[in-house]
Amino acid sequence: MELGLTKEVTTDFEDTITKVTEELKKEGFGIITTIDFKNTIREKLDKDFRKFTILGACNPQFSYDAVRIDDRIGLLLPCNVVVQEKQGKIEVSIFNPALIKFLVADEKLIEMSEQLVERITKVLSNL
Amino acid sequence: MELGLTKEVTTDFEDTITKVTEELKKEGFGIITTIDFKNTIREKLDKDFRKFTILGACNPQFSYDAVRIDDRIGLLLPCNVVVQEKQGKIEVSIFNPALIKFLVADEKLIEMSEQLVERITKVLSNL
Repeated sequence: MELGLTKEVTTDFEDTITKVTEELKKEGFGIITTIDFKNTIREKLDKDFRKFTILGACNPQFSYDAVRIDDRIGLLLPCNVVVQEKQGKIEVSIFNPALIKFLVADEKLIEMSEQLVERITKVLSNL
Repeated sequence: MELGLTKEVTTDFEDTITKVTEELKKEGFGIITTIDFKNTIREKLDKDFRKFTILGACNPQFSYDAVRIDDRIGLLLPCNVVVQEKQGKIEVSIFNPALIKFLVADEKLIEMSEQLVERITKVLSNL
């Protein structure tokens, strides 16, 4: 199963970050962390890397319900959204919540992960 | 396979965050994100939750090498470290890099994940 749900977009890098943030908000996700990986690599290793930003998206109600069922879900929060420049194109990839069923056995969590996949698919289709 | 490598510690919540940050640093990991989940839940949902903090640990060299092999690794960065109060005790749980072998097929990445497991095991043993 794919690690990420992915879409190549036609907007530029910065506009894509703005747009995906807006679309995630419509589905109840706020961005609670932002890692400018290109910048981190330049600062820490003095190396060049392409534009590559990792946004941490969190739906508070889903997260709260999930962590109360199984606190190991904390190890998978927030839901990562990678926006990157790749061979001259811009790609958005969102962690695939369907993977949760291989990591935890709870039926309610699996049902919630399916709802999250629907929301994320909607976000990507609107980009 | 376990989602997290876990240890119950005897230090208090705040001291544990300080100590795990120091031990991660010795192994080349910096904390690049901090999510105070208890506080997020209070702010967003007006609910009480126990002390539960998610630290994002990043080893720049490992991350850089890994993302250049397979950029989907970005979906797994940073490495999550959950420090939580649980039934009156303090528990530290770190995302188990050994899971990478179920998510990507690259031999070099699997070898790197084994090195990360060693480093994380060392961090936990020093808490």
